[in-house]
Amino acid sequence: MRQKPIALSREIVASSRLFRVEQVELRFSNGVERTYERLVGRGTGHGAVMIVAMIDSDHALLIEEYCGGTDEYELSLPKGLIEPGEDVLAAANRELKEEAGYGARQLEHLTELSLSPGYMSQKIQVVLASDLYEERLEGDEPEEMRVDRVNLRELASLAQHPQFSEGRALAALYLARDLLTQRGSFQP
Amino acid sequence: MRQKPIALSREIVASSRLFRVEQVELRFSNGVERTYERLVGRGTGHGAVMIVAMIDSDHALLIEEYCGGTDEYELSLPKGLIEPGEDVLAAANRELKEEAGYGARQLEHLTELSLSPGYMSQKIQVVLASDLYEERLEGDEPEEMRVDRVNLRELASLAQHPQFSEGRALAALYLARDLLTQRGSFQP
Repeated sequence: MRQKPIALSREIVASSRLFRVEQVELRFSNGVERTYERLVGRGTGHGAVMIVAMIDSDHALLIEEYCGGTDEYELSLPKGLIEPGEDVLAAANRELKEEAGYGARQLEHLTELSLSPGYMSQKIQVVLASDLYEERLEGDEPEEMRVDRVNLRELASLAQHPQFSEGRALAALYLARDLLTQRGSFQP
Repeated sequence: MRQKPIALSREIVASSRLFRVEQVELRFSNGVERTYERLVGRGTGHGAVMIVAMIDSDHALLIEEYCGGTDEYELSLPKGLIEPGEDVLAAANRELKEEAGYGARQLEHLTELSLSPGYMSQKIQVVLASDLYEERLEGDEPEEMRVDRVNLRELASLAQHPQFSEGRALAALYLARDLLTQRGSFQP
């Protein structure tokens, strides 16, 4: 493993309700100095979770939600912030009930994914949920989300869908497909 | 398609060298009003590109780079910003030469992925590169990147690698594997 650069200084240079930008002066092991900016989320201290919820042996649930970043209604996986004192699987089940109207009897942590490690510290936990049952919890969403589903055989087509774009959601779906195929519970 | 919420006001509430945060007051079609924040990149107006470069029929190139967001050396795909007047495939070939020391005779656009559409506008173009040859271009990197490779049969293991975390890079690798499998040029 390489020797990490040394931080010569750190300073918060911008700040809003949800974001803080930290400016870091770095010296690399070869002597080169550079100014980096990193984005630090606020209120995300307990992490976040994204759920691949299998409604049957072939299909995962998608939700359609208004996305402020792109100003579009987009399809993605249910996801949300983990609350203080809540474990990853409990957070996954709560978000699934709030966003998709289902609970899960089986919950399994798959992996952790980052957003953009070059300038963001955020990570998200990926959870596989199965053996679902109908249960809705009231969340803080401004409007009810439409629930859809995708066949795990059609992930390449999903990537081309005009309403689907989120890279880490696509990665989570592929990972779930790989695992279920390996276990013999899904036939690709 | 649902009726999109109306923006009642927009305001830049924080700003740094690389980032701007826009605060938007939204009214949803059901009358509910909410304050959203969206992150707008600076200097990213021409977009960005990420490259799955096949060094042989089974392996894609990875680069190891210091990541300021996570303060770790991480493995990921070569990627970078598209320059003014540069098309997506030319940008992909330039970044591949700068970061990995290879050019490609075959370049193909696969799809566009978003980072976190809920609060970011950024998108990245995914390019498949093949028929590689050695050529290094000088980039603006602070130090040379170590080049590694991953077998497309081992993407689930890659997701568990302590130095690999980036969701959209994993999605790009899976998409390339799907396409190459479908064409018969890769045996899963």
